Amino acid sequence: MTTENDFVRQLKQRFPVLPPVEIGIGDDGAVLAASGSRTVVVTDMLLDGVHFDLQKTSARLAGRKAIAVNLSDLAAMGCRPTAAFVSIAVPRNLPDASSFLQQLYDGIEELTARYSITLAGGDTNSWPHPLAINVCLTGAPFGTAPILRSNARPGDVLFVSGPLGGSLHSGRHLTFEPALRLSEWLCVHSDGHALMDLSDGLSTDLARMMEASGTAAIVDAAKIPIHSDVDASWSQDRRLAAALGDGEDFELLFCVDPAEAAQLPHRAAEAGFRLYPVGEVLAGAGCQIRHPDGSIQPLSNRGWQHAM
Amino acid sequence: MTTENDFVRQLKQRFPVLPPVEIGIGDDGAVLAASGSRTVVVTDMLLDGVHFDLQKTSARLAGRKAIAVNLSDLAAMGCRPTAAFVSIAVPRNLPDASSFLQQLYDGIEELTARYSITLAGGDTNSWPHPLAINVCLTGAPFGTAPILRSNARPGDVLFVSGPLGGSLHSGRHLTFEPALRLSEWLCVHSDGHALMDLSDGLSTDLARMMEASGTAAIVDAAKIPIHSDVDASWSQDRRLAAALGDGEDFELLFCVDPAEAAQLPHRAAEAGFRLYPVGEVLAGAGCQIRHPDGSIQPLSNRGWQHAM
Repeated sequence: MTTENDFVRQLKQRFPVLPPVEIGIGDDGAVLAASGSRTVVVTDMLLDGVHFDLQKTSARLAGRKAIAVNLSDLAAMGCRPTAAFVSIAVPRNLPDASSFLQQLYDGIEELTARYSITLAGGDTNSWPHPLAINVCLTGAPFGTAPILRSNARPGDVLFVSGPLGGSLHSGRHLTFEPALRLSEWLCVHSDGHALMDLSDGLSTDLARMMEASGTAAIVDAAKIPIHSDVDASWSQDRRLAAALGDGEDFELLFCVDPAEAAQLPHRAAEAGFRLYPVGEVLAGAGCQIRHPDGSIQPLSNRGWQHAM
Repeated sequence: MTTENDFVRQLKQRFPVLPPVEIGIGDDGAVLAASGSRTVVVTDMLLDGVHFDLQKTSARLAGRKAIAVNLSDLAAMGCRPTAAFVSIAVPRNLPDASSFLQQLYDGIEELTARYSITLAGGDTNSWPHPLAINVCLTGAPFGTAPILRSNARPGDVLFVSGPLGGSLHSGRHLTFEPALRLSEWLCVHSDGHALMDLSDGLSTDLARMMEASGTAAIVDAAKIPIHSDVDASWSQDRRLAAALGDGEDFELLFCVDPAEAAQLPHRAAEAGFRLYPVGEVLAGAGCQIRHPDGSIQPLSNRGWQHAM
């Protein structure tokens, strides 16, 4: 039996307090010194049986994913992470709760260590139900300000940062690397108009960016990069649907003006990033897809949303 | 069926974006302008069947409590709230999910409205298990800096802000008012050395404050204010144990130096606050209780901690 106090002490020993955190684990809250800069906060809750399945997935990968999806949100804001706040509801019937928690926080530490993030607070509870884990991260812009999703402009070229589809099926959603390095590069070396991450599938997320920006978009079916995790034996239509709708890709979606777009993939390649132009921002509303035969259809919302 | 998008739109319409939040609901994260000041972040996860029971408690009171306990943490840091981030896992089998969510956010809004807090983000999921709700709040110090729990000094007088015990039994834990007004008054009008809130019972929380401060404490049994929610027919011992150990009081525990302590209750009373001196900080380690007959015992840890 480990008490909450012991557990907090262990966490405190294990996770160093790094700038800009002044007071981390162990008080009622965490103190972040902010000197004239912006603090960005993101949060995502992950649930056993929904976002991962602990029958098949280790606690380590569950913990890792909980941090990774939040890091992806910070990348999507053009921010570096500063502090993490992790709340967990742990199942009471675990055969070895202590080992479970150790593994969970191993997964968390993998990413907090890599990105020099202070685990600065959280809450731990137990209950007779599956694991729920909430992560809240604070961040600070890589550039002078965060890059929002609401500033796409007609004429902009749309890019994605990697191949799409098959993430849930292949398990990639548990091991992906959040696109923080690319986000930093874009903030420093480009004038990105709008930026977000692809969590629910390109078709759903592009619609969100366009709605937020008050713009329309058209994507080229032939240009959508399809991930090798999508079954090669499937029809092209089915493979495309997977790339557009599977979700959990955690790649970046962003747009820049056409003059910059012409240079960007080459400059990015020199820095080690591959960018995929997939379409164009238009005046109006709604999203369309242009097929190789020239036909144009509405881009249906093939991503998923939580029904409530 | 309400989709996540619709739900986010509804929340956006309902909860105004207030300074210092620049970007709230609807992007990947929230942007908080911070100009040379500190941002404080607190978080607590509440679970159906653990922190409230939706068989007996309305969704409104559950939502209210989720905000209230976090506000109590901010009060305990000497901070006013600025922004709230609410993540929920909603049961899939609800007869009327939409009405449930409406009520839950009614309870949240009661306190965000009263304290001018921007609901600046969150995450909504559904699953075939009971409600889990995580709240993360950011805050800014009422004074020049947060007041920590780690700065109690030998000789300090210990105060609590209200009577203790019976909170869970009476339902007070669902309706208490977080001690933000008192926290502000203390930050402005006193030189509090250490401050925290009483969530797990005075005996547990005092031990935490003393451990964090590297000090010891002695409390006077006769001075512990016992709440009228504690059954008057019980023996004095049982009533005292309830006051020390029931938990969920959400009063403040703080200490000031003896010279200030002599004036403080009178000055506080003029401002409308009643303060209860309960004991003294000592050099050393550990907590004791002095009974009316003069005998002294170790203060046992009668509060509860989550066993893990």
